[in-house]
Amino acid sequence: MPLGSRTDFGDAKFSGVQTGFSPDAARLLESTFQQGFDFAVAPLVNPKRGQKVSARGELDPLTPQDVLTPPAEHAGQVVGLVSSWISPDRAEALEQRQHEAALSRELDWAAHNSLQAAVCPLPRTGPVSNYARTLLQFTLGLSPMALWVVIPLGQTEEGSIASSSSPTSSPGSCNDVDGWSRWNHVRSLCDHSTQVGVVLEVPASLPAPQHVRRWFAEPVKALLLPSSVFVTNRKGFPTLPKSHQALLLQFFGFGVQVILTGLPESSSEPPSSGGGGAWTVVTGSNGGRVLPPRQDSSARQHWEYLSFLFRRPEPVAQQEQMEMGYRDFLQVPLQPLQDNLESQTYEVFEKDVTKYTQYEEAILAALRARQRRSSAAEASTTTGSPQPNGHHGSTHPRNGEDSPVVIFVVGAGRGPLVRASIQAGQRAGRVVQVYAVEKNPNAVITLHRLVASQRWEDKVTVLAGDMRALQPPQQADILVSELLGSFGDNELSPECLDGAQRFLAPGGISIPAAYTSFLQPISASKIWSDARAYKDVEHMETPYVTKMHRFSAMADSLPVFSFSHPTAAQPNNARYARLAFSNRSGSAAALCHGFAGYFEATLFGDVTLSTHPTTHTPNMFSWFPIYFPLSTPVTCPAGCDIEVHIWRCTSLHKVWYEWALAQPQITGVHNMLGRSYHVGL
Amino acid sequence: MPLGSRTDFGDAKFSGVQTGFSPDAARLLESTFQQGFDFAVAPLVNPKRGQKVSARGELDPLTPQDVLTPPAEHAGQVVGLVSSWISPDRAEALEQRQHEAALSRELDWAAHNSLQAAVCPLPRTGPVSNYARTLLQFTLGLSPMALWVVIPLGQTEEGSIASSSSPTSSPGSCNDVDGWSRWNHVRSLCDHSTQVGVVLEVPASLPAPQHVRRWFAEPVKALLLPSSVFVTNRKGFPTLPKSHQALLLQFFGFGVQVILTGLPESSSEPPSSGGGGAWTVVTGSNGGRVLPPRQDSSARQHWEYLSFLFRRPEPVAQQEQMEMGYRDFLQVPLQPLQDNLESQTYEVFEKDVTKYTQYEEAILAALRARQRRSSAAEASTTTGSPQPNGHHGSTHPRNGEDSPVVIFVVGAGRGPLVRASIQAGQRAGRVVQVYAVEKNPNAVITLHRLVASQRWEDKVTVLAGDMRALQPPQQADILVSELLGSFGDNELSPECLDGAQRFLAPGGISIPAAYTSFLQPISASKIWSDARAYKDVEHMETPYVTKMHRFSAMADSLPVFSFSHPTAAQPNNARYARLAFSNRSGSAAALCHGFAGYFEATLFGDVTLSTHPTTHTPNMFSWFPIYFPLSTPVTCPAGCDIEVHIWRCTSLHKVWYEWALAQPQITGVHNMLGRSYHVGL
Repeated sequence: MPLGSRTDFGDAKFSGVQTGFSPDAARLLESTFQQGFDFAVAPLVNPKRGQKVSARGELDPLTPQDVLTPPAEHAGQVVGLVSSWISPDRAEALEQRQHEAALSRELDWAAHNSLQAAVCPLPRTGPVSNYARTLLQFTLGLSPMALWVVIPLGQTEEGSIASSSSPTSSPGSCNDVDGWSRWNHVRSLCDHSTQVGVVLEVPASLPAPQHVRRWFAEPVKALLLPSSVFVTNRKGFPTLPKSHQALLLQFFGFGVQVILTGLPESSSEPPSSGGGGAWTVVTGSNGGRVLPPRQDSSARQHWEYLSFLFRRPEPVAQQEQMEMGYRDFLQVPLQPLQDNLESQTYEVFEKDVTKYTQYEEAILAALRARQRRSSAAEASTTTGSPQPNGHHGSTHPRNGEDSPVVIFVVGAGRGPLVRASIQAGQRAGRVVQVYAVEKNPNAVITLHRLVASQRWEDKVTVLAGDMRALQPPQQADILVSELLGSFGDNELSPECLDGAQRFLAPGGISIPAAYTSFLQPISASKIWSDARAYKDVEHMETPYVTKMHRFSAMADSLPVFSFSHPTAAQPNNARYARLAFSNRSGSAAALCHGFAGYFEATLFGDVTLSTHPTTHTPNMFSWFPIYFPLSTPVTCPAGCDIEVHIWRCTSLHKVWYEWALAQPQITGVHNMLGRSYHVGL
Repeated sequence: MPLGSRTDFGDAKFSGVQTGFSPDAARLLESTFQQGFDFAVAPLVNPKRGQKVSARGELDPLTPQDVLTPPAEHAGQVVGLVSSWISPDRAEALEQRQHEAALSRELDWAAHNSLQAAVCPLPRTGPVSNYARTLLQFTLGLSPMALWVVIPLGQTEEGSIASSSSPTSSPGSCNDVDGWSRWNHVRSLCDHSTQVGVVLEVPASLPAPQHVRRWFAEPVKALLLPSSVFVTNRKGFPTLPKSHQALLLQFFGFGVQVILTGLPESSSEPPSSGGGGAWTVVTGSNGGRVLPPRQDSSARQHWEYLSFLFRRPEPVAQQEQMEMGYRDFLQVPLQPLQDNLESQTYEVFEKDVTKYTQYEEAILAALRARQRRSSAAEASTTTGSPQPNGHHGSTHPRNGEDSPVVIFVVGAGRGPLVRASIQAGQRAGRVVQVYAVEKNPNAVITLHRLVASQRWEDKVTVLAGDMRALQPPQQADILVSELLGSFGDNELSPECLDGAQRFLAPGGISIPAAYTSFLQPISASKIWSDARAYKDVEHMETPYVTKMHRFSAMADSLPVFSFSHPTAAQPNNARYARLAFSNRSGSAAALCHGFAGYFEATLFGDVTLSTHPTTHTPNMFSWFPIYFPLSTPVTCPAGCDIEVHIWRCTSLHKVWYEWALAQPQITGVHNMLGRSYHVGL
């Protein structure tokens, strides 16, 4: 039985319980299911058997009584637990081989029984290379069974930051005390196999947030929750301390399951068949099903508490609902300049009410600002010295109180910014003349339909063509565009607006007025693995639009490229930035998989749009962040410098980014000369 | 004219001179050649011109008077010198683009004129990423012109080891003061392109040996030798201080050329045509040729000194002569067990007199040791209590003074160890009975011929067959084999001798008695690049037999796998070793390209064979070291730990190695399950 019916948080709907050993797996599972749990984590080999070795130094063969043999129909509900005495990294060569053989034998037995996963308790200290190599060897076989390496969440290098920056104890040593570094060692040796995941043992005393946070970026498959972590409330029921509640809720958010461990053997046993309660038949929407009698065993009480906790998160916001299906899904960025968008795509973007509200506010503010300037100019004309003929200063004399304000919407699409312009004009009490410039002939048809249906024929003129080439019938006072991509300039807003700013009268206003991209090193094994799954160079050098979810930021973001409009004559849109993320004191060691990109834009005055985490415009969902991968992930010790170089390159027909890590390791330049990815002009 | 006629040191036979700028390149070259130099390094653009920028912020076009235009027939003797003011890593964006464009323009001009190389003076401080990226961009074009980045040899992090281990100044930062780190940054960004090399500026005061040594592993194309480094001897001629002489001789050994710089302009000019001396016609073996009049200019004197220095090295030893042609040449190890060797291969190995002398000494020592034991046993039989019947202790009672000593030579090849056995028997005054076991039917024919020609019919029995399966006609007292590979056990000596030790009587002796392999992390860009040139995974996971020449050891070697013979029953030849090269104090930062492997073997008693650098058997050339590559080179900061894991894996039909770096970065396991390379059983 799942913990709850919430499906909005991914796959975290299952809970398991660790049981004792029993060769009678059917009885074990019956008891587990009766208590409410979805699966059992059971020892593959009787722990009491221990490490039996024949006189010739070989492992004693296993007998049927020694091993767990789950019934075929329930194989999917049993996770095998590898014997904890196995430790193939012993110094003595014969022991080492025996332990390797024992590990392989248990994994093979689990795979033979079609178990979905095996829990592998990595020794807490000492080297791990042979353990890792034996796991890697298993993954290269035919079985798809997952391997879950057990790592204590509480085992961190915390408090020894100073010593960890010295060469002798830098993360990555196979003798490292830090649990994360031990995991990093195992998965690196396993070449980042997606078959190898991690389960975290939750301690009574939780580590510092930065040591927890980095696990969000890792393939954590489950939390091992010892019953000893629970406290008893006044009514005598098991509950978790606040800190642990918060931890579980965080991990539930990442789709991580829970496995209850350490229950006394008796509590996970069903009562003897004679003493069971009455069974209940429930007739619900799913048809009648038989529920077992309610078990008030300790295990059942723990399950009920977990179930309660799982259902507790608040209903998610609309924005989050929208994004759910896109989490950690890699999309190659749109190229609206080169390609014509489909109507469906416009439809999705137009649903972003927040964005168009911000645009309307910006246009309104711009209209008011112009009005103030005109009044001031008129006042000075009246009271001061007469103005010379023609254009002067930043004031456009044609725009008096009576003449309409000319607004060019460039890249009008199906018209949302045309609507925003007209509404802003109405609110400002100004007559506006809107020109809707659109190069997509299909969208132009819809624009004409909109104008007709709204009776805007006197206010709106549709101009079909590319804004970079079109000859405007008159000059614009305000130039409105929505050409920004996830990384700000990546959908070629700078190039388009450079072309379109010919429309602008002197002193005219561009909305947006400016934008800046931001970059941040991240750990994110999920999306990196997904890009690597393509097995080619191209996919490791392509920036992806991604709603990053299972990731962890490794430093605060830094600004990258800035553009403002209108620009001086002959702007050059090539850029280069060197970003030194050097203020990482208190950071934990983590594996850098690349960089997350965001943008902040000033539409007009103080009206902004932002996808940057700390300034994100509330409820705006038009943009996901962008992800720049590193072709090989790089281990970054705690507190180390991270330095990135990024180029925005331009040529006659295309624009592209190149990037390289310079610290703590130097990589080659990714996407050199746009060989793997570019945006067509 | 080359510096000398020695061809034994690779390509270091050319010397160049840096000249001033002249648009009249023909005259410049005439003067250079007259002084004896082979090529000129000349500014591509008049340095006096400086950085000219138009009012619009663009580079001013170059005129014919601004640029060096070498005559087509001498293009190969001119190396272009890029303007030293170019520094594309300035903070200001417009300047940055101008400098990038200037760099590209000079490189393009040099390539247009088919120059073989351009010398690129990297700025001495500040970031280098844009410089590197512009070079990388050039290498991706069509021109094969080499790019030689100038790095000051004297610019090291020395004296700041303490601060360099702190995170903020770790090597790899593009702001690094260490010249090597700046070079490492450039070539890493350039993805280790073989088109990008380095030229070292020799300072007056030389850095510590470890800072010089690491350059032996790098693609150093030339030394820039300023005339200011010379001192004047008593006769008034320019000479180099002892330390600089030693430096040049070292680099000559690596085929590095010399470019003289900083001569006063006048001294590199030929005297006016009116004042020249008489020309001399020399009639030599090459036919008559006209020599220019001897120029006693300063440049000529410097050239003569360099020429003297180049000819100075002692004639090389026979071993070195043999190895010359194999330097840095990657060979996949032989598989003498799986394949039958060619006669030519035996021929080469049999030339190694030293090796067979050592074997003869070992057999002699074994015969004498046996004799001593027999005597002692007889003495005890005579003087002590009577022995029970049959075999006893380690003494084989059959071998009295009179019965012949039975020697099995397993893998006899064409017979050199048979000869060594017989000679040892003669020297010991012992009758020996030699069985020559050989599986290669072609070698067996040669063996029979040898026995007949030497009239050894009474002493030698040829047994055709695989030593692992053959049934011996009697038991051996001594088992002699030469089955060692470059990494000791890599030609499956352990597996072969495990099979052959059935031949041995109890208490019998195996020659060799034991062997141990050694491993050492190395920097070696040449051989790594050669392996990478195959562009596949296989070649990055294959150990190569290589006479490593252009390489630099990054730590003392450590022992890896040990075997001894005869072994206990049922030996297991799988091995695992974790090597921590942690005592690297005083080491300089370097790029680890993989590991060099050696072996030490004890033949018998104190008679050894060794390919290990510190214990190498003099004049033995049968084995080159082995090279285990890393698929991606890893930057190792000064003093950092280097940790390696290596496995010797065995299965029914094959043996192979797997390896991984664990410190300072963790790599995946190379050659997992022998996917790229194995030795067939």
